[in-house]
Amino acid sequence: MKFSCYRDNILKAINSVVKGVASKTTMPILEGILIQTNDNDIKLTTYDLEIGIEYIMECDVKEQGSTVVNAIMFSEIIRKLPDTEISISINDKNLLEIECEGSLYKLATMNPEEFPELPKIEVENSIEIEQNNLKNMIRRTIFAVSSEESRPIFTGCLFEIKENRLNLVAVDGFRLALRSTVLDNQTNDFSAVIPGKTLNEVNKILSDSFEPVKIGVSKNQALFELDNCKIVTRILDGEFLNYKSVIPSNWETRVRVNKNNIQNCFERISLISSSSIEKEKKYPVKVSVEIGKIVISCTNQTGEAKEEIFVSTEGKNLEAGFNPKYFLDSLKAIDDEEVFIEFGTKISPCIVKSVENNDYTYMILPIRLKD
Amino acid sequence: MKFSCYRDNILKAINSVVKGVASKTTMPILEGILIQTNDNDIKLTTYDLEIGIEYIMECDVKEQGSTVVNAIMFSEIIRKLPDTEISISINDKNLLEIECEGSLYKLATMNPEEFPELPKIEVENSIEIEQNNLKNMIRRTIFAVSSEESRPIFTGCLFEIKENRLNLVAVDGFRLALRSTVLDNQTNDFSAVIPGKTLNEVNKILSDSFEPVKIGVSKNQALFELDNCKIVTRILDGEFLNYKSVIPSNWETRVRVNKNNIQNCFERISLISSSSIEKEKKYPVKVSVEIGKIVISCTNQTGEAKEEIFVSTEGKNLEAGFNPKYFLDSLKAIDDEEVFIEFGTKISPCIVKSVENNDYTYMILPIRLKD
Repeated sequence: MKFSCYRDNILKAINSVVKGVASKTTMPILEGILIQTNDNDIKLTTYDLEIGIEYIMECDVKEQGSTVVNAIMFSEIIRKLPDTEISISINDKNLLEIECEGSLYKLATMNPEEFPELPKIEVENSIEIEQNNLKNMIRRTIFAVSSEESRPIFTGCLFEIKENRLNLVAVDGFRLALRSTVLDNQTNDFSAVIPGKTLNEVNKILSDSFEPVKIGVSKNQALFELDNCKIVTRILDGEFLNYKSVIPSNWETRVRVNKNNIQNCFERISLISSSSIEKEKKYPVKVSVEIGKIVISCTNQTGEAKEEIFVSTEGKNLEAGFNPKYFLDSLKAIDDEEVFIEFGTKISPCIVKSVENNDYTYMILPIRLKD
Repeated sequence: MKFSCYRDNILKAINSVVKGVASKTTMPILEGILIQTNDNDIKLTTYDLEIGIEYIMECDVKEQGSTVVNAIMFSEIIRKLPDTEISISINDKNLLEIECEGSLYKLATMNPEEFPELPKIEVENSIEIEQNNLKNMIRRTIFAVSSEESRPIFTGCLFEIKENRLNLVAVDGFRLALRSTVLDNQTNDFSAVIPGKTLNEVNKILSDSFEPVKIGVSKNQALFELDNCKIVTRILDGEFLNYKSVIPSNWETRVRVNKNNIQNCFERISLISSSSIEKEKKYPVKVSVEIGKIVISCTNQTGEAKEEIFVSTEGKNLEAGFNPKYFLDSLKAIDDEEVFIEFGTKISPCIVKSVENNDYTYMILPIRLKD
């Protein structure tokens, strides 16, 4: 195997695939990058048995071949080389030689035959969406994915394609995050639950560009296809929550509030509420709505806090307890200047939603206040 | 106690004094900030029994008084308030009230009588220097301060005032860092060894400005006086190394090299040398000087690395072993485009110094190479 390429090009390829490298594993081969030449291309592959990533780049291939090299070591060396032409080859001692100006590095390699094959995917349904749009949707729902392995289906994020919209839904038993967008092309309805962990990696590979990403699903796997790069990840088995049935459609109390103002209030007040030695859940903050204002307050052994904002209110007065962290996570995921916050009774879920459209719904469950 | 001030002003004061707050302590009072009014000033004080910091700021004092409040909680709340006027007072339940627009916070306080007094300092000798100059000198020597408590004097940095120069010296048994600057005003010769740990904090408080800082020393303490702010720190007892006697004045081999080039070589090669499972000391890199070039190389179970740079050389050929980390630390502390590297024999220390002046000398001890 022998090829040459520019440092920036191969670094881009490496940066894409390293997200698929296993971090804690007893199989050293999974800590490697599989490098394969194919005529005038090279293909880099990583696979941690959950997420697999392939990246194909053109380069000047002088001898065909393949090898596996430790991903961290390979990427660190390439990263620190000057941006100029690099020659990469296998020598007769089976070491990977990296040559660039006055630098010569030789790295131990592993047998490419031992590298596990990525699952083959027969795509049954697919959609196309702009990368920056998908990236934003993931970022703004993934925080609500459950980390509790006791209900595995909720450690994933629902991708629901329905009536030409893509809905992303994450739920962890205390709150729910829903982001929705209109798709450009007509598609079948389908859905899949993708593990939050692998979605995090997918998100790092997605760019902030308007370039498309194609999402395809088979029975057990999902495939994200970008320019040059393919990401394969498994799908979670099981029935996701019928999320529409749990989101209340009516409200008793509604507040229209400047998003940054109320976010700042929750940020300050959580300094006090989360300073408690006991679990923060047990010391919720109290949210009170009266005509024309919303008051957020809390008291514990650290001290007392009270935040008052003048807002436009509709409906009944209300007093309910909440974990400010859940409000903060949702508010941080919103760009709008103003939002609606809708309450039912003091034991029903609270909804944060757009004043203008249906692009997002965040639901937060209340906590019972002590008397 | 009652006063009002602008959030940005008091935040600046808090940011200066929090560096003196004890982090791990069984005495909660040392986690606090002492706030004292004095006519139309307030003074903030922190003291962890090693380093003490005082900051005086003008503000609108309505009622005289003093209190101690948890530093982290107080600073976090102030940090998150909007930049406008804040009113701070003690209420009748002895809670510190912080009021700003719609926000009201009440924090538990501690008895100011219990706050330990800062040591009184009778300054015997002092110098004045620009803050950015001192900051740079500290930053560029402190990395060589020893972390081994077995020789306490080397856990500090020598401040030597001699023949109207300030010399800062740090040494840890493997390398030595010396920075030197000319002082503007005539002063007596004197010296003091200041703990590296407290010097780190002093450095965070120094600004990048040309504003002066006055350094005064008494028998056991040093005092750094800045505009509004005073820092007191203890001095280490004992005899520092007679550093001049250990820095070689002659060389057998001298290289003149582009600083960034050789730094990049050491950075890359330390990827290989430090990847070894065994201690990096045992796998030094080999530095070879031949006519017109310097070659740095290393071999271990991860692989092999060789870096070659064409340079101007003088004197004999040489081959010696070094820990690349020590070279890197020194090279990173240098801004010049070119440096001299001077070698004696393969067992004598290596010197990195300026091509143009005497502002710095970095000395690195070699490691015996295995055959």
